[in-house]
Amino acid sequence: MTITDSTARLEAFSDGVFAIAATLLILDVRVEGHHLANELRTIWPSYAAYAVSFITIGVMWVNHHTVFDQIARCDRRFLMINVFLLMFIAFVPFPTRLIADHLRDDQLRAAALAYGVTLTLTAVFYNLLWFYAAQGRRLLRADADDAVVRGISRSYRPGPWIYLAATLAAIVSPVASVILFAAITVFYVIDSAVFARGSS
Amino acid sequence: MTITDSTARLEAFSDGVFAIAATLLILDVRVEGHHLANELRTIWPSYAAYAVSFITIGVMWVNHHTVFDQIARCDRRFLMINVFLLMFIAFVPFPTRLIADHLRDDQLRAAALAYGVTLTLTAVFYNLLWFYAAQGRRLLRADADDAVVRGISRSYRPGPWIYLAATLAAIVSPVASVILFAAITVFYVIDSAVFARGSS
Amino acid sequence: MTITDSTARLEAFSDGVFAIAATLLILDVRVEGHHLANELRTIWPSYAAYAVSFITIGVMWVNHHTVFDQIARCDRRFLMINVFLLMFIAFVPFPTRLIADHLRDDQLRAAALAYGVTLTLTAVFYNLLWFYAAQGRRLLRADADDAVVRGISRSYRPGPWIYLAATLAAIVSPVASVILFAAITVFYVIDSAVFARGSS
Amino acid sequence: MTITDSTARLEAFSDGVFAIAATLLILDVRVEGHHLANELRTIWPSYAAYAVSFITIGVMWVNHHTVFDQIARCDRRFLMINVFLLMFIAFVPFPTRLIADHLRDDQLRAAALAYGVTLTLTAVFYNLLWFYAAQGRRLLRADADDAVVRGISRSYRPGPWIYLAATLAAIVSPVASVILFAAITVFYVIDSAVFARGSS
Repeated sequence: MTITDSTARLEAFSDGVFAIAATLLILDVRVEGHHLANELRTIWPSYAAYAVSFITIGVMWVNHHTVFDQIARCDRRFLMINVFLLMFIAFVPFPTRLIADHLRDDQLRAAALAYGVTLTLTAVFYNLLWFYAAQGRRLLRADADDAVVRGISRSYRPGPWIYLAATLAAIVSPVASVILFAAITVFYVIDSAVFARGSS
Repeated sequence: MTITDSTARLEAFSDGVFAIAATLLILDVRVEGHHLANELRTIWPSYAAYAVSFITIGVMWVNHHTVFDQIARCDRRFLMINVFLLMFIAFVPFPTRLIADHLRDDQLRAAALAYGVTLTLTAVFYNLLWFYAAQGRRLLRADADDAVVRGISRSYRPGPWIYLAATLAAIVSPVASVILFAAITVFYVIDSAVFARGSS
Repeated sequence: MTITDSTARLEAFSDGVFAIAATLLILDVRVEGHHLANELRTIWPSYAAYAVSFITIGVMWVNHHTVFDQIARCDRRFLMINVFLLMFIAFVPFPTRLIADHLRDDQLRAAALAYGVTLTLTAVFYNLLWFYAAQGRRLLRADADDAVVRGISRSYRPGPWIYLAATLAAIVSPVASVILFAAITVFYVIDSAVFARGSS
Repeated sequence: MTITDSTARLEAFSDGVFAIAATLLILDVRVEGHHLANELRTIWPSYAAYAVSFITIGVMWVNHHTVFDQIARCDRRFLMINVFLLMFIAFVPFPTRLIADHLRDDQLRAAALAYGVTLTLTAVFYNLLWFYAAQGRRLLRADADDAVVRGISRSYRPGPWIYLAATLAAIVSPVASVILFAAITVFYVIDSAVFARGSS
């Protein structure tokens, strides 16, 4: 197959999956029972799951956006890597909800492991996507800035290891693992803002 | 991160979230029971919730569209503000449904407060999005008309306060609060039409 | 508000709503029970509802596409008309499912009336959308062909009346009404093909 | 209707349906019960169904993308063929889930037949879409390479027969049929990579 000179459709399909994955957990925000004011307080884990899932996938979308700013072309192997990446991203709401549901019971370890494995694999596929495109500048724009390309490579490489470490922490202490996951997410949100500060 | 010269993907992802959020409440339009004609009348609050939610989010989409007509670039901080904004917008169907379900019972106060808090926060993030872009014309198009920019600023600034006032009204009278919310929505729909009249 | 020289976002948001509305009824295709082969035959009304709904909304999407081929600009009033139109389109799967569920019981009249009212209002808003754009060529492309514009006007005008007649037929005979609805849909599908034949 | 010189909206609507169809089965990944670690192992068929469905629809999306790289225009008949194709694609998650649910019980034959019929019809409509566009180069780009066009034709033609054969195999042996379906999917995933290798 020839390399096509556009990533427009890849981005449109991806944006659709991101949009669905981000909003998915709103379907789990539901009240049942007779005293609404109490119910609205009781279901706070479903708000938390929705917010964390939306923001996590939002950060992933920002990253996807950043990567594709540097990319000018795609080939079929790249399209398939992107399909696998999206498959893991759209799975994220499920273990996010598990953590929210089991934050205060003795099943948190399983939930943290499920979340950690999902996020680790997502980070692996983000790396595959980026390094497949960047290797020998295979799919990069002709005018992609070397400093920016190296910056993305540097920030992506540790991702899977950081998530793997936080996942393995769940074996010893599920609570510690969840705190690490939260810290990673907060770091990425702040990182986006700091990054932006440098260039605005 | 560099500022990118396009908002195409931001709009594609946003449009996906808007489309999902707008259509979401159709999933709650369901009949159960044996006498269909009666059922179809009994479930009118689910039609009302669907229509109000669709139109509210439709008006928000028109506003998003209006803002982005003036914007030429984005940076990562702007992308993150947009992610938070979309998170609140996709949440709107939930409290809208609560109001429809409790219009005529004694739980309306909690529903009105939930709706009001959601809409107030949505208005806050609309302001953050707009003023982040407009401040010093940071992300505006070079040819953005000053009169239009000031017009948007003027119409956005009171939004959070109006919603906050209508929310606080629920403490005294939930019914008054709901009437205010309805009036605000009707105002925005008509405003779109009047606005258009001036320029067509 | 100024008239913007692009309908790209309007189409992206609309396409999202069309895509969701078309695929919605697949969520109702479900089997329960122990003998799968029997179950798969028993639930044929859910296949029929899915197919009819997908094709009906597909035809509406083709029409939307045809209209926007002639349109170069939009204003806020046009955006609001489109929001209302999409609200009715995304509602179509609900009464379609009702007809499928009640094809062979005595509740068909209510289902046919619900379907008919929805489709009639959809046709009304298609007319509003088109004639708002076409009146005095308000939003049309400078090079829009007069013959094509008149052709669309001619084919849209009778739409609401045809659907209204088929809806009122349900009062006398629900079965006749459903046959009329089916005939209208088949006509539109064939019409697309015949139309295409003339120009290919 | 005139032939329009763009397939942008056709692709946007299609990408929306692909995105929804691919992510749909995540809604069926749910846990119930008290021992989470056990539950997460017990529901592996729902992971498998999600992954197979996502990847299958991902491969179909890559194919759709490949076809549209060669296409410059569309007419209304082509739009309708695409609507029917998307209807079958969005149906794929349903029989995929059936196979996952009945992999190890005596209802697998019905599930394999449902899956096979769906995939066979999808392949038929892929052929209709492609040969309608390619016949006499009706809708192809002026610069579409003859070798690429013949390559797509050659790879599409056997599709329906291969799926039909695997479907009929279910009458004799449902397990053999499922192995064939899996082999076809793996072949297509690898094929994408091999194909890409030739051109990168």
